[in-house]
Amino acid sequence: MSTHNFQPTHYHTTIGSHDPVLRISDGDTVVTATVDAFGKDASNTEVTTRGNPQTGPFYVEGAEPGDTLVVQLDRITPSREIGYTGSVVAPNVVDPWYVRELPERELAEWRVDNECATATLIKPETKLGNLVIPLSPMLGCFGVAPPRGQAISTATSAEHGGNMDYRGFAAGVTVYFPVFAPGALLHVGDGHATQGDGEIVGTGIEISMEVQFTVRLIKGKQIRWPRGEDAEHIFAVGNARPLDQAVQHATTEMLRWLKEDYGLDATSASLLLGQCVEYDLGNIFDPAYTMVCKLPKALLRFSH
Amino acid sequence: MSTHNFQPTHYHTTIGSHDPVLRISDGDTVVTATVDAFGKDASNTEVTTRGNPQTGPFYVEGAEPGDTLVVQLDRITPSREIGYTGSVVAPNVVDPWYVRELPERELAEWRVDNECATATLIKPETKLGNLVIPLSPMLGCFGVAPPRGQAISTATSAEHGGNMDYRGFAAGVTVYFPVFAPGALLHVGDGHATQGDGEIVGTGIEISMEVQFTVRLIKGKQIRWPRGEDAEHIFAVGNARPLDQAVQHATTEMLRWLKEDYGLDATSASLLLGQCVEYDLGNIFDPAYTMVCKLPKALLRFSH
Amino acid sequence: MSTHNFQPTHYHTTIGSHDPVLRISDGDTVVTATVDAFGKDASNTEVTTRGNPQTGPFYVEGAEPGDTLVVQLDRITPSREIGYTGSVVAPNVVDPWYVRELPERELAEWRVDNECATATLIKPETKLGNLVIPLSPMLGCFGVAPPRGQAISTATSAEHGGNMDYRGFAAGVTVYFPVFAPGALLHVGDGHATQGDGEIVGTGIEISMEVQFTVRLIKGKQIRWPRGEDAEHIFAVGNARPLDQAVQHATTEMLRWLKEDYGLDATSASLLLGQCVEYDLGNIFDPAYTMVCKLPKALLRFSH
Amino acid sequence: MSTHNFQPTHYHTTIGSHDPVLRISDGDTVVTATVDAFGKDASNTEVTTRGNPQTGPFYVEGAEPGDTLVVQLDRITPSREIGYTGSVVAPNVVDPWYVRELPERELAEWRVDNECATATLIKPETKLGNLVIPLSPMLGCFGVAPPRGQAISTATSAEHGGNMDYRGFAAGVTVYFPVFAPGALLHVGDGHATQGDGEIVGTGIEISMEVQFTVRLIKGKQIRWPRGEDAEHIFAVGNARPLDQAVQHATTEMLRWLKEDYGLDATSASLLLGQCVEYDLGNIFDPAYTMVCKLPKALLRFSH
Repeated sequence: MSTHNFQPTHYHTTIGSHDPVLRISDGDTVVTATVDAFGKDASNTEVTTRGNPQTGPFYVEGAEPGDTLVVQLDRITPSREIGYTGSVVAPNVVDPWYVRELPERELAEWRVDNECATATLIKPETKLGNLVIPLSPMLGCFGVAPPRGQAISTATSAEHGGNMDYRGFAAGVTVYFPVFAPGALLHVGDGHATQGDGEIVGTGIEISMEVQFTVRLIKGKQIRWPRGEDAEHIFAVGNARPLDQAVQHATTEMLRWLKEDYGLDATSASLLLGQCVEYDLGNIFDPAYTMVCKLPKALLRFSH
Repeated sequence: MSTHNFQPTHYHTTIGSHDPVLRISDGDTVVTATVDAFGKDASNTEVTTRGNPQTGPFYVEGAEPGDTLVVQLDRITPSREIGYTGSVVAPNVVDPWYVRELPERELAEWRVDNECATATLIKPETKLGNLVIPLSPMLGCFGVAPPRGQAISTATSAEHGGNMDYRGFAAGVTVYFPVFAPGALLHVGDGHATQGDGEIVGTGIEISMEVQFTVRLIKGKQIRWPRGEDAEHIFAVGNARPLDQAVQHATTEMLRWLKEDYGLDATSASLLLGQCVEYDLGNIFDPAYTMVCKLPKALLRFSH
Repeated sequence: MSTHNFQPTHYHTTIGSHDPVLRISDGDTVVTATVDAFGKDASNTEVTTRGNPQTGPFYVEGAEPGDTLVVQLDRITPSREIGYTGSVVAPNVVDPWYVRELPERELAEWRVDNECATATLIKPETKLGNLVIPLSPMLGCFGVAPPRGQAISTATSAEHGGNMDYRGFAAGVTVYFPVFAPGALLHVGDGHATQGDGEIVGTGIEISMEVQFTVRLIKGKQIRWPRGEDAEHIFAVGNARPLDQAVQHATTEMLRWLKEDYGLDATSASLLLGQCVEYDLGNIFDPAYTMVCKLPKALLRFSH
Repeated sequence: MSTHNFQPTHYHTTIGSHDPVLRISDGDTVVTATVDAFGKDASNTEVTTRGNPQTGPFYVEGAEPGDTLVVQLDRITPSREIGYTGSVVAPNVVDPWYVRELPERELAEWRVDNECATATLIKPETKLGNLVIPLSPMLGCFGVAPPRGQAISTATSAEHGGNMDYRGFAAGVTVYFPVFAPGALLHVGDGHATQGDGEIVGTGIEISMEVQFTVRLIKGKQIRWPRGEDAEHIFAVGNARPLDQAVQHATTEMLRWLKEDYGLDATSASLLLGQCVEYDLGNIFDPAYTMVCKLPKALLRFSH
């Protein structure tokens, strides 16, 4: 179980079966860096093309299609002071007739302070003044090589992960990905200092990050969609459009999880979910939207 | 400002311009009873046909189209011990191929204890045993007479409210409805002792309720969709299918609210919502689904 | 089997259990008039409020919930020379980012010539000049009283029919409606001299009509959605949003039809539909959209 | 302007920037072969993995991002006698509650007769007997390398084409693709001897084909979505889910086309489309659905 320090020199704007930048083993930890969605690094220099450029892929020894890759997000820390956000809600999240009311999009700037754990609005000047909001760093886009040798744009998401923009992908969370290609080929990028539900302005506070993660491998365990857990919840992720279908994917994956790992048949699982499930919204900005089906772990402490 | 005690003798399974059961005034409080979704009252006797039968309508003196009706939910208390839920997730919330995995639907029974504020699963017998979950009483279906003289089934929802099944409609919450008909004609019903997000088994814990509410009238203030607030948040509700459109309605209504009442132009509102908005899921079971766009009030304490 | 001449004196902008204007019998024919979507009659005088005002309802003696009402559209003839259309595609049929490219909506005027069976664009002046297109008169909005005592706006559609804006509802077509209320309560209105698929400008060529129809009753036959047939095809109609769900309703109704009336099990029906089905688009403008599942009758001439 | 005969030896189940199998020039014609969706060739031998394997890609000299590739479909001829179809409608095209009514999926066999231009159902034995239907050969899946270096599964579709399953892609049709990669990289495959709208059983009559096409290049002309034309119509294709969004893509592309090539501003184009547009349904089976916005050419014979 080694710790690898990896400094990226190139990036990918698709998630696919690209040449790995590093080979790591079950149990290994990686400390690395991600550029922001615009390709800007910790010195705010544009080092690659925009569009959620990814660090990686990391090849996990022994990972094969049909396995599950476990990615523990140990640390996600903004690596510079300045972050950027869109300044206007996306046309697809308002009523069609209201689109004309929207101004032109520009980039807003926020000063990010890791010590105080705050972001402060710097510009443009608005009635909000220097609004101060709490940090809640997360990864907007990350995932593994998709099936069938595909290379999928980091603008979107699917079974392999990708641009899900879910606030729940923060430090302390363990993420599970289905493995579709040898080595799994983990990509990470698109850090947000914080973000509202839905990423409705098309951005979180886009910023470069220092990222530390630890991988594990579950051989022979096949999941269909990304899953996650933290101290309080387990959750399953669905990526699709419309949101209705994302809900279907996430709920079906949760039912499968409750059956396989907790021994709950469809009736038991339904009784539990029906009165206790929570849904979170990932992005409603991309080609594919994201919904998350979530259940408190405390409810799973019956004898299984 | 009087308090009216009203015991219903008949119910409606549409929300429409029905004959009012009581005329009340701005500031008045009503204490009344609702039957459960199946038409069963506090003695668990079926007193009317099933389908979210509504108590009311209550005619609010002076309310006219173009006004806003304010409904403060003072108290929502289960009025019997037994509640019912569906036992299987609805076919529309799982992947189409997975529908065949679902068992037949039956009714589960829960014992509701107001003192302990818990619900305990009584039957069927499952691996969950006598699962105990916290109460969180709410109204699943309520609203005002819709526009154009319509009478709309209590199975669905629209601008006038209706069957939204949103957990946030609990005691302590203030709800705002657009007034479409003289007297507003408030209907209330479909109490749930608790409910998961999405009402994905087609029910909360369906139970009869004692309900107390207080109405106010805002003359000449025109809103488009139901809104609400509690101590911590303001929220706007969108009812439509697919969920994407419910998000559009709710977000547009929130933008209008922030502009009219808080003086935020589209850019300011976008900057705020973009990084701080939260979305909650009402039901994803009815013909129309419900999404709620929510903002912490603490963020609105700039000088307006 | 009588023929009734009925001249309307009032209209409805909901389809519901309104007082009938005429009681007719199985086999009877009605000759009547409809105003246009704006409430203008054959003399182009606004005689009622806008919004697809309906003539009727017509009470069909003996019709009860669980029956099917057959409406043969004998004749639909424009009753004046001038018709109106919207001049800009609706914001919901273009990409959200494109909405800003759309000009303000105004009303265009067309001269309708029944003898030549043409409509000629009169104004505004555009590069199209006096564009001449063929007439294809149809009913945009018609239907029967919906279930549960509902009164549903003529802006939308559901199982009872309503504002479907399907080009296929033309003279020579036989339409089947499920009966939900005693007497069925048939409403007719919203004539279009012609219309493109989808009613994407929110109108056909809106015009007053002379309408002749003949009703029949099929006792004890229960259908779920409107159906139709002409010399060449049978078709089933689904009304919902998104279009995906309208397709589901229409296809399911067609499968039920093929099973009940033609004895085709799901496999036979699938083999047939899979390679031969056609889908038509009704409106994609209303709250509920319309899709039509259609099959050539020639394919049903196996021995049944 | 040469004619190339190309016999494929390998195939791709993604459309992407794969090594070209042949370099051709503006004006060249290619005669080639495609295997069926299951990877079976003209001798009904499985020569590659299933999933719409593509012949190609063909590199068109001089094609660069920002150009338009013109593909004239000269000939599409079934190259064997036996074709296969699914035997049951897909779960996503029926109402969720109806899914349980569907039998298990098997493969049906059809005998294809090029001379008589018919397909005859061979098995399974059903009430349809040996149903005979007309041939209407088409390409289900074809397209060019997508943007951003992506490789996209041939199970789905997007701006680059892909698995659109549109009956209109038949011999005699000219197709236009946006060029996203040097050489355009045209892939062709997934021939259907015929197909119903929507490909609702998940297949047309899947069969190997002889395909002849001729390419042209329009330098510097940038389109966003596939377009096509035949003797009677021009059409624009949108690929997305839900269908509503596919309609938005297709309609927006048509508006752009009418503006750029026919000089119609948004009002003129709306007046024309509003009363004359037709929509066709491509597949409603894939992850991305397909809708086609179509206009008769006769209407475009004003002076432009």
